[in-house]
Amino acid sequence: MKVLLTVLLITFSLPAFSQAKFLINEERIESRIKALAEFGKDANGKGYRVAFTKGDIEARTWFIGLMKNAGLEVSIDYAGNIIGKRKGKNPSLKPIAFGSHLDMVPDGGNYDGCVGSIGALEIIEVLNERNLVTDHPLEVIIFSNEEGGTIGSMAMSGHITTDGLKQVSQSGLTMAEGIRAIGGNSDSIQYCVRKKGAIKAFIELHIEQGGILEKEQIQIGVVEGIVGIVHWEVAVDGFANHAGTTPMNMRKDALLAASRLVIAVNEVINSVPGKQVGTIGKIAAMPGAYNVIPGKVTMGLEIRDLSAAKIEQLFLTIEKRAAAIAKSSGTIISFQRQASSIKPALTDPAVQAKITAAAKALGFTSKLMQSGAGHDAQEISVIAPVGMIFIPSKMGISHSPKEFSTVGDMANGTHVLLQTILKIDSE
Amino acid sequence: MKVLLTVLLITFSLPAFSQAKFLINEERIESRIKALAEFGKDANGKGYRVAFTKGDIEARTWFIGLMKNAGLEVSIDYAGNIIGKRKGKNPSLKPIAFGSHLDMVPDGGNYDGCVGSIGALEIIEVLNERNLVTDHPLEVIIFSNEEGGTIGSMAMSGHITTDGLKQVSQSGLTMAEGIRAIGGNSDSIQYCVRKKGAIKAFIELHIEQGGILEKEQIQIGVVEGIVGIVHWEVAVDGFANHAGTTPMNMRKDALLAASRLVIAVNEVINSVPGKQVGTIGKIAAMPGAYNVIPGKVTMGLEIRDLSAAKIEQLFLTIEKRAAAIAKSSGTIISFQRQASSIKPALTDPAVQAKITAAAKALGFTSKLMQSGAGHDAQEISVIAPVGMIFIPSKMGISHSPKEFSTVGDMANGTHVLLQTILKIDSE
Repeated sequence: MKVLLTVLLITFSLPAFSQAKFLINEERIESRIKALAEFGKDANGKGYRVAFTKGDIEARTWFIGLMKNAGLEVSIDYAGNIIGKRKGKNPSLKPIAFGSHLDMVPDGGNYDGCVGSIGALEIIEVLNERNLVTDHPLEVIIFSNEEGGTIGSMAMSGHITTDGLKQVSQSGLTMAEGIRAIGGNSDSIQYCVRKKGAIKAFIELHIEQGGILEKEQIQIGVVEGIVGIVHWEVAVDGFANHAGTTPMNMRKDALLAASRLVIAVNEVINSVPGKQVGTIGKIAAMPGAYNVIPGKVTMGLEIRDLSAAKIEQLFLTIEKRAAAIAKSSGTIISFQRQASSIKPALTDPAVQAKITAAAKALGFTSKLMQSGAGHDAQEISVIAPVGMIFIPSKMGISHSPKEFSTVGDMANGTHVLLQTILKIDSE
Repeated sequence: MKVLLTVLLITFSLPAFSQAKFLINEERIESRIKALAEFGKDANGKGYRVAFTKGDIEARTWFIGLMKNAGLEVSIDYAGNIIGKRKGKNPSLKPIAFGSHLDMVPDGGNYDGCVGSIGALEIIEVLNERNLVTDHPLEVIIFSNEEGGTIGSMAMSGHITTDGLKQVSQSGLTMAEGIRAIGGNSDSIQYCVRKKGAIKAFIELHIEQGGILEKEQIQIGVVEGIVGIVHWEVAVDGFANHAGTTPMNMRKDALLAASRLVIAVNEVINSVPGKQVGTIGKIAAMPGAYNVIPGKVTMGLEIRDLSAAKIEQLFLTIEKRAAAIAKSSGTIISFQRQASSIKPALTDPAVQAKITAAAKALGFTSKLMQSGAGHDAQEISVIAPVGMIFIPSKMGISHSPKEFSTVGDMANGTHVLLQTILKIDSE
């Protein structure tokens, strides 16, 4: 392989170099994915690289070592984000940034965040191997605690609050304590805010976490935007009564009404064209016994779409359906909007176009798609033009040990990321 | 009142005496209902006369005192049942038994079991006041731990098992320990079994625990039988996935399928004439988060009816509906029949007829109805002809502090019980 690389080095000049997929070192990516997966396994072998835990800290240390070996000037900002800088020819230009995160959900997989982090480092390795220096400075950013609420990127966009820092993270530590554990300092967190316009562009490579690319056999997803998310706590109040002595026609069964609402939500979401999704993911029925008609049911409703207006419109229709269900069942149905809601974030059309062009030039199939999951790019979109590159996820599985993307797809995505950076750099 | 009673005593001979409703002392019943309610209140004033707890034991001691004051010969059998005997003119005749229970569910009401217990004692008081001795011996029976599984009556019918005695009751004690705490001894529990035919008849006065009598403005319910109960644990297996990234048409949403099943169960139960009831009273969705499509739902299904065959037929129809739902939703739905199921128990038609006749003679409206709840009479039906008399429950509420029956209705029910006993005695 080394011989071949040398040959290529001699043979191709820059635009032609773009086409050579094999410049991306698949073996290096694969071995690093495997090495990263070893950090933070629990006693049962389950992945537990939850932010701020031992596994997260050890993985970060390992990754910082790789970054330094690749010649990056590494620092940790006050929010615990790892930033690896590579000088450009023109120090007056704004940096082009790219990266992802190393932390995972409990019992998560080995690709979410990892592909984007290892892919970002791969760009540096390839540029080093080519002795290629971009005009713009480059920054590899590894955001802290993405899975626990995009904490690192929120700090960078200036969205983190004092209350937010007091919240207890999955690790058991508060956000503030956790940030300190990974080398940050939340007392000075305001100093890691990046001004709007200070970054030329931010591009994140990520697994799709859904099954669309695989199903449609498309290699590259060009993300149009990251959906907004609204959560409502739903309460259905009926009347608890003896399940043996209360005739069917004298019941106010909260679970029966709730079931009609679950179906209504599904119908409403499916009633209009588009990529919107709506889910009732949690439910509890009280008192919850074989022999008592449920008197109260609580549920969690989530709607996601790229358009905040569409989310509101769908919710209004759901409210109307709920009112009809409540009337016919003698129950009361109420919705309480949750603070955890997130606004949609659109990616930059110019960056989208460059990603699409890069994919095309490399001979990859691609499609515009939305990201149904939240990402750090969402936060960074407030301060910089962002783009996201998706690669297929096997069976669309994510946040699970079954998460999988092929090394070929990881290399493809990395190559598209490299070409996109070079296109932005050449502007 | 006392003067009036004396006048009545002189004026009426036995059949005429039956008609005089006011021979039942409403004030005595009401004051005893109130006194009983004071036993076992917890720190928050909630009722906690759960079997084998301090409240239960104190209430039993108080009630035994009242029984002894009324001249009954009181004993506690090996299962902790309180038995109060009153001699008849003919000691060779089998005893006529009547009674109920003093224990309650946690945070229960003041009428379930209490009305039948205090009503039974009221019969003795009235007979004493009339100096009336029946031909048959009489037995007031207060069964132990009715709410925790009709333990006392199961012991009397011979249905209690060694495993059953090892089960932990609501009190925290095992059944065996609890029985010992109330003066029984489960090591000798086989000696409290009554042989089939040893009791002339057993009649239980009870609140309806449903809203039919109140709704139809009927004073007396003549119970045709106590429904059988079958429980199934239902599992719906779909596929848990990211609620943001999984398109609507690529989901195997276990909660959506479960909701269709909840509605199907309701439709199947309502699809045939009759008094059958079917309930899904408990549900859990896993993993149970806003942002995850439920991969698995478990539910509890209960069907009750007087006919075991009808229960099976309804279940077969539900199974067919479930198979169709599973097929269309890509889920797997399975049912597991639970050991807690109970066979239907019919009351004795001759006793039913006597109750109906007694109600009619007293000028009360009555109707034949089923008991949707389980009762000690269910167990005793295996060894003796049984009857049950229901009185209205306000709003049909039961197993709740809101449980209520008027003193007038309690007196009516007690009077019907008295007349029924006298009719059986005069055979």
